[in-house]
Amino acid sequence: MSSNNLYDQYCEKMRRIADVKYASAVLQWDQETYLPQKGAAARSRQLATLNELAHQLTTDADLGKLLQALQDKEDLNFKQRRNVELTFEEYRKQQKFSSDFVRKMSEAISAAFYSWIEARKQNDFKIYEPALTMLLDLKREEAKLLGYNDHPYDALLNDYEKGSTVKMIDAVFEKILSPLKELMTEVMARSQGDKSFLHRHYPQKKQWDWGMYLVKQLGFDLEAGRQDISEHPFTTNFSAKDVRITTRIDEDDFANMTWSCIHETGHALYEQGLPDEEYGLPSGEFASLSIHESQSRLWENCVGRSRLFWNHYLPVLKNYFPDQLSDVNVDQFVGAINKVEPSLIRTEADELSYHFHVYIRYTLEKQLIEGTVEVKDIPSVWNQLYKQYLGVDVPDDKRGCLQDVHWSHGSFGYFPTYSLGSFYAAQFWQKAKEDINGLEDQISSGNTAALLEWLRNNIHIHGKRYTSEELCKKVTGKGLDSDLFIQYLRSKLLA
Amino acid sequence: MSSNNLYDQYCEKMRRIADVKYASAVLQWDQETYLPQKGAAARSRQLATLNELAHQLTTDADLGKLLQALQDKEDLNFKQRRNVELTFEEYRKQQKFSSDFVRKMSEAISAAFYSWIEARKQNDFKIYEPALTMLLDLKREEAKLLGYNDHPYDALLNDYEKGSTVKMIDAVFEKILSPLKELMTEVMARSQGDKSFLHRHYPQKKQWDWGMYLVKQLGFDLEAGRQDISEHPFTTNFSAKDVRITTRIDEDDFANMTWSCIHETGHALYEQGLPDEEYGLPSGEFASLSIHESQSRLWENCVGRSRLFWNHYLPVLKNYFPDQLSDVNVDQFVGAINKVEPSLIRTEADELSYHFHVYIRYTLEKQLIEGTVEVKDIPSVWNQLYKQYLGVDVPDDKRGCLQDVHWSHGSFGYFPTYSLGSFYAAQFWQKAKEDINGLEDQISSGNTAALLEWLRNNIHIHGKRYTSEELCKKVTGKGLDSDLFIQYLRSKLLA
Repeated sequence: MSSNNLYDQYCEKMRRIADVKYASAVLQWDQETYLPQKGAAARSRQLATLNELAHQLTTDADLGKLLQALQDKEDLNFKQRRNVELTFEEYRKQQKFSSDFVRKMSEAISAAFYSWIEARKQNDFKIYEPALTMLLDLKREEAKLLGYNDHPYDALLNDYEKGSTVKMIDAVFEKILSPLKELMTEVMARSQGDKSFLHRHYPQKKQWDWGMYLVKQLGFDLEAGRQDISEHPFTTNFSAKDVRITTRIDEDDFANMTWSCIHETGHALYEQGLPDEEYGLPSGEFASLSIHESQSRLWENCVGRSRLFWNHYLPVLKNYFPDQLSDVNVDQFVGAINKVEPSLIRTEADELSYHFHVYIRYTLEKQLIEGTVEVKDIPSVWNQLYKQYLGVDVPDDKRGCLQDVHWSHGSFGYFPTYSLGSFYAAQFWQKAKEDINGLEDQISSGNTAALLEWLRNNIHIHGKRYTSEELCKKVTGKGLDSDLFIQYLRSKLLA
Repeated sequence: MSSNNLYDQYCEKMRRIADVKYASAVLQWDQETYLPQKGAAARSRQLATLNELAHQLTTDADLGKLLQALQDKEDLNFKQRRNVELTFEEYRKQQKFSSDFVRKMSEAISAAFYSWIEARKQNDFKIYEPALTMLLDLKREEAKLLGYNDHPYDALLNDYEKGSTVKMIDAVFEKILSPLKELMTEVMARSQGDKSFLHRHYPQKKQWDWGMYLVKQLGFDLEAGRQDISEHPFTTNFSAKDVRITTRIDEDDFANMTWSCIHETGHALYEQGLPDEEYGLPSGEFASLSIHESQSRLWENCVGRSRLFWNHYLPVLKNYFPDQLSDVNVDQFVGAINKVEPSLIRTEADELSYHFHVYIRYTLEKQLIEGTVEVKDIPSVWNQLYKQYLGVDVPDDKRGCLQDVHWSHGSFGYFPTYSLGSFYAAQFWQKAKEDINGLEDQISSGNTAALLEWLRNNIHIHGKRYTSEELCKKVTGKGLDSDLFIQYLRSKLLA
């Protein structure tokens, strides 16, 4: 049989697997946006069945034979070869799990999600404890099934960022935490102005309209996606032509929705920029979670917290909120949205202290997976780490260990990609400024089209063809260099 | 192996099939409510894959063996035996379709749906013609695959109402069309008052609030369901605890949303009243489409267009729309919402002329399926039938043959259940009034709880255990008697 014919068969199998996975994603999206509360139990089992079916299709022996046959063919091009290679990797990985394990995991995740929602409502970690314990046991089992050399957490880290290990992530943080700490002290010693105007009353409907305006301005194609409201903002997609973002609105905190809109739009622009004709294939998927996060953080921070951006957008914003912002100039505004200060909530943290939030989660997860911290001790360990690294007292679980949705999604090992993503973002941002003539002037006049095009052509278009490091080298000429992030921050915060 | 054990295995298989079917229903719900337009192509293939998987699970040889083994067991109770019997029927029926046929049908339905939406937008049937032609060819093939004795349409009718045939439906209409025509002439000879106040301006947001109030008042559990907006109102469900209704709002037509809310709530109350513990089994499903429709029409018409109901609700409604309704009393209101007049739109028709709308669709479908009318001739045949039976001139396709979503869902043979449902509704309504002490007084004071309880205990609780006729006999002591519908209408319209 010719390679073309075999490769087509492979593509069709992959598209069917994608259909089931995306169907599962639709059910999850609905679960976090519109599902009525009593529908939770049935939804859990529906998700479990879809995930089980997707697993069965992914580990199907016929697919295995096809992959084997394709691997031996010599007339595949680079993209095809890479797709086959990545799929074979995933095939072997998924074979380590039984159908039953996949189902159990899916059910445990749903149970944890609902109990997290309830625990947040009642502001009580204890409600979440049993479901999280069950889920963590399964994650430990998952690490064993996947296998690892040095640390069980490596197996899980690898799930979100291929090739990453505790050793590697430790080294990244070791290198950056001191310069971050020093910079933080230096910035906080200066007068940083006031940000109380961000906490005036910003009515829900007006915020929504403003947020929708903003995501459109940034290039989010609303014919190929939409925005809704959820407990925790997220981006998901069911094809490159159907990308869903969510946000949340706090009438007493203008920052909450605005930068979540920009952040999720950054993710969404990446998904909308992936090659749609590669639906279901690795070449149609995002490169890695750190690269995904580099896109959201580049838009949220490098663009969305820059003076350039607000030169143009503050006057527009004042049309939405004349009463709230009439007495605020662009200096005050940009100062406020970049104010560095230790805080409780990761998603609301400034760009600098943000990485202490991530490091705390990373540290805690490592301990949970290796078994040196138990679920019941999460609140006390969490609070102690916040005291140690950020010097703040956590007043309650909602503003503490219940703030993030990730664990209730079974995502242990995900957080480090947030820091890696920020560092990649700074590196890409610098390269974009070098490559695009007059980029800063463009942004200053509200035009981000050339930046988006640059990201599309240099990053989005490649899908999963390259690893994070390969892609970073291809785009910037060298691998991740977190010094560039420090330089970026210094020039911004000490300007 | 014990029957219990076998029966449990059967239940678990059925629940997994239900998971996939309900997942498909979630994707369809999303398609009609929130899907961004460019997401259509991927959604079509995702639905096709889920439908194919559901078909594979339904026709799985292991399930067949299990059903065979269970059929020979003697220690099943009535409910269990009936479940097995109905599942075996479905198993044999689904085996007549190939996987490929199921996929093609699913894709043709999606294509028809999107082209129907576009054709409505542009008010041009020609846009819809190619997709509908392709779908109709498949429906004709479906009739052949299913097999029939007298008429190919019988095979499709049977899909919506088991055991129904052209012969039977012809007889039903033959019996009722003349008395309906006579009553129509009689009513229209009288002075019927004015309904122009229903076409004053009713702002969208206010209508939405009123509709949500109303569905709650009628007993729709919003913790086990929700309402959204769609092009064509519908009810769907993903379990008895997750029932979704939709509506549409026309600011210049108060009637449009209000009675669609009541109608869909009638469907939804039935779904919420089905035994949740029978999830995935026939005993947890609705009896038939005509019984489903009896529930929606009972609430919409017998209750929702009664003077009793508006005795209580008109004053409430006036609080929502004081400007629009201050000069309207309950006589005028009830007169207007029951005004009999030939019209163009089925869903807005009065209770009497409604059945001519249904008969026209039934007549046309029969001809389409037998091949005596071609798709391209639908507009002219439609318009001619409307002239013949209702004496009205159809001004354009949107108010003509493009008005209903059904064909674009592949639903040929569905419409007759609307008339059957109305007739069952009148029969149930009369029995409910006999059974429930003071029901009319209760409704007159806005209390419909006892009626709902009666429907739950007499109809909902039985799931699919009985056929429509068996259920009708069980509830009312005799099979369908459409004379009761005529009596109901006469006493209402000539009072």
